[in-house]
Amino acid sequence: MKKFFVLFIAILLLCTSQGRPQAALVFQTDFGLKDGAVACMKGVAFGVNPNLKMFDVTHEIPAYNIWEAAYQLKQTAPYWPPATVFVSVVDPGVGTERNSVVLKTKTGQYFVTPDNGTLTFIAEDLGVDELRQIDEKVNRLAGSEKSYTFHGRDVYAYTGARLASGVISFQQVGPRLEPKVVSISYEKARFEPGAVWGNIPILDAQYGNIWTNIDEMIFKKLGVEYGTIVSVQIKNEKRVIYTGKMPFARAFGDVSVGQPLLYINSLLNVSFAINQDSFAKIHQISSGPSWQVKIEKIK
Amino acid sequence: MKKFFVLFIAILLLCTSQGRPQAALVFQTDFGLKDGAVACMKGVAFGVNPNLKMFDVTHEIPAYNIWEAAYQLKQTAPYWPPATVFVSVVDPGVGTERNSVVLKTKTGQYFVTPDNGTLTFIAEDLGVDELRQIDEKVNRLAGSEKSYTFHGRDVYAYTGARLASGVISFQQVGPRLEPKVVSISYEKARFEPGAVWGNIPILDAQYGNIWTNIDEMIFKKLGVEYGTIVSVQIKNEKRVIYTGKMPFARAFGDVSVGQPLLYINSLLNVSFAINQDSFAKIHQISSGPSWQVKIEKIK
Amino acid sequence: MKKFFVLFIAILLLCTSQGRPQAALVFQTDFGLKDGAVACMKGVAFGVNPNLKMFDVTHEIPAYNIWEAAYQLKQTAPYWPPATVFVSVVDPGVGTERNSVVLKTKTGQYFVTPDNGTLTFIAEDLGVDELRQIDEKVNRLAGSEKSYTFHGRDVYAYTGARLASGVISFQQVGPRLEPKVVSISYEKARFEPGAVWGNIPILDAQYGNIWTNIDEMIFKKLGVEYGTIVSVQIKNEKRVIYTGKMPFARAFGDVSVGQPLLYINSLLNVSFAINQDSFAKIHQISSGPSWQVKIEKIK
Repeated sequence: MKKFFVLFIAILLLCTSQGRPQAALVFQTDFGLKDGAVACMKGVAFGVNPNLKMFDVTHEIPAYNIWEAAYQLKQTAPYWPPATVFVSVVDPGVGTERNSVVLKTKTGQYFVTPDNGTLTFIAEDLGVDELRQIDEKVNRLAGSEKSYTFHGRDVYAYTGARLASGVISFQQVGPRLEPKVVSISYEKARFEPGAVWGNIPILDAQYGNIWTNIDEMIFKKLGVEYGTIVSVQIKNEKRVIYTGKMPFARAFGDVSVGQPLLYINSLLNVSFAINQDSFAKIHQISSGPSWQVKIEKIK
Repeated sequence: MKKFFVLFIAILLLCTSQGRPQAALVFQTDFGLKDGAVACMKGVAFGVNPNLKMFDVTHEIPAYNIWEAAYQLKQTAPYWPPATVFVSVVDPGVGTERNSVVLKTKTGQYFVTPDNGTLTFIAEDLGVDELRQIDEKVNRLAGSEKSYTFHGRDVYAYTGARLASGVISFQQVGPRLEPKVVSISYEKARFEPGAVWGNIPILDAQYGNIWTNIDEMIFKKLGVEYGTIVSVQIKNEKRVIYTGKMPFARAFGDVSVGQPLLYINSLLNVSFAINQDSFAKIHQISSGPSWQVKIEKIK
Repeated sequence: MKKFFVLFIAILLLCTSQGRPQAALVFQTDFGLKDGAVACMKGVAFGVNPNLKMFDVTHEIPAYNIWEAAYQLKQTAPYWPPATVFVSVVDPGVGTERNSVVLKTKTGQYFVTPDNGTLTFIAEDLGVDELRQIDEKVNRLAGSEKSYTFHGRDVYAYTGARLASGVISFQQVGPRLEPKVVSISYEKARFEPGAVWGNIPILDAQYGNIWTNIDEMIFKKLGVEYGTIVSVQIKNEKRVIYTGKMPFARAFGDVSVGQPLLYINSLLNVSFAINQDSFAKIHQISSGPSWQVKIEKIK
């Protein structure tokens, strides 16, 4: 009778392990989808565990644009559950001294990436629980040392897949590092009496609107309401690119065609637009860490 | 002994439930793949059920083009099994009074979408079994009311994922509506003695050929055969854009280079082309509900 | 007691079969992702087996470009495990006499495709274990004969899905053919005293560098070292497009801006570049089977 119970338990465990919800493996790169590079990464991950659930943020990060890689992770990660493993490969420094790391956030998600600024917003928003360097002696596709090494495939996808499927624990990734990632410096949103400062993380490219990182709450500390005229200054690398006045408007139609306005966008951040035209094109505004915004209320 | 049988049955059910074929969740949007918007939707769905099988029709529907969203669903849905849940988000009216609905077709598939015309062809081709309004008090990602609402993510992906994985039944989507979707009006393919009428649902963009919704059977009611000369009129919003004569040809080579022809395309519909040139470009023809075609046999 | 054991075994098999690692089904086409064509293929495969694991190499092979289809398979397949089933549909000859085949490589992978040159590199690199013609009387989506046939969907995706999920064995694909695929002829990399010959399989499009199929080992038979000046001739269809001299350089910076160099690329093959400019654009070089490269060491 006892033998039966043992068997029962074994079967139960077997069944249960098969049904165990697995961590998702979510990829992001600047490789594009015109060739097989992403498919090579997924093939390696499938080789680690054919039951892995794989997804993509985007593979169309502009080439070498670490800032956008960081920003897309920030926008996407909060909608994935704890234990999700993100593999982000935008790696202009491949072959140089940058660290290959796995970050565990305070929310329990993992980010496998070169530590080159990609983790800037994730570390800020989700917090650094622990940072580990990938030990490539262990966590590297067997045979990949013999030929050309494609780190995205041989190290990042391979390590991410092993972590997501429980082949290795987080501890087995490699040695623990100081819990501090390489961060891109940029103008944080902040209020000082009389003005708010911020950055342009990304453009609303389809319409040419300017999105800032200044949220509605901070902006409202200026004591503004709909109709208030504000003065806006936009700099790039400390050079003034734009200065002008515009109303805080509820909707585009509140100003005449061709006139500028400040509005709150769909992410609840301050944005600038021109009614029926492109603010970005007309004033040659782009996005990234070097862009700085200052808004003052006109008395 | 009886205890054992109970245990057996329990284990069997457990095993079987894990192997239960699950409904696919198939996404379509006009978001593009350059940012993380689609990945946010999939993250929410994965949070509902990590074993969900997710696929995509396309995310490159031209921005706000409900007509093309409707057309791509028509072309794709018949190749997916019953119980498949489609989530289509092309939503120029987000924030306005359009209904968020789930349509169950007579073929047993589900379509989760704003009811803004996206269901035009699905309702026509597959039939409306039942239409329900999404009750956002229940079927909305927890916490998403507090901040900016992205309906594709917080309502449509969430509801689709719950429906596909059996967390909610179709009845639990929300209240039943009149079984009538918002339909885009367009010229249906029809024969009247002496002429056939129809619409241009989409262009064969790569070659500039004009595809109509007039199938071979309807066209042949004109009493045509290969070589018959027909007169073709194409209108947009009632304005005549093109009139001309061309033969009903078996192949492009049946006419000289630069000459027009009428042929039957790969979907078995009437199409217009110019041998080795672009009919669409030369005659400025586009596609959509406002385009009307009339073909007459020349006596 | 015996009854119990029988039951145990049955349950065990059931559980195990659910957990059985399944072959991946990996798609490649020139259909693009703007419409539902790829989704139709996946819908058919899902109908065969909802538990199939589906992936993509790329769907952006340039239209009808069999050479690039062949090349992307070559680059990707080695990173997928044995038993993986690839479905590649770049099929300019649809409707003509080309065979629909499944190739089993000596490495145990399967390739489902029109036999039109797509298998050129796979056959060379991985070896032909067995080649079978798809018997469309058996291996074709039911009902698809009645209307327009889309081979990628009705034959290739359907057969690939049945093979990957074990619905049919490789033998049941159809009759065995001579183990010889249609191959695109091109200049193989080879050394003869005084010169090496090769082909341009693909460009490094982003930078305009020229990639050859001549690997470092073959090139070094010329007795070159960094700094050695070589003479390079590039022909297309036997017409000389470029002749010039350049050094074998370690890095781009070893030559002045605007000067040409020969270097070893990330795949460990000989490549040509111009420092801070596009070799391909300036000298009008493209890629494909008709391109031939000859390199000589200057005494």
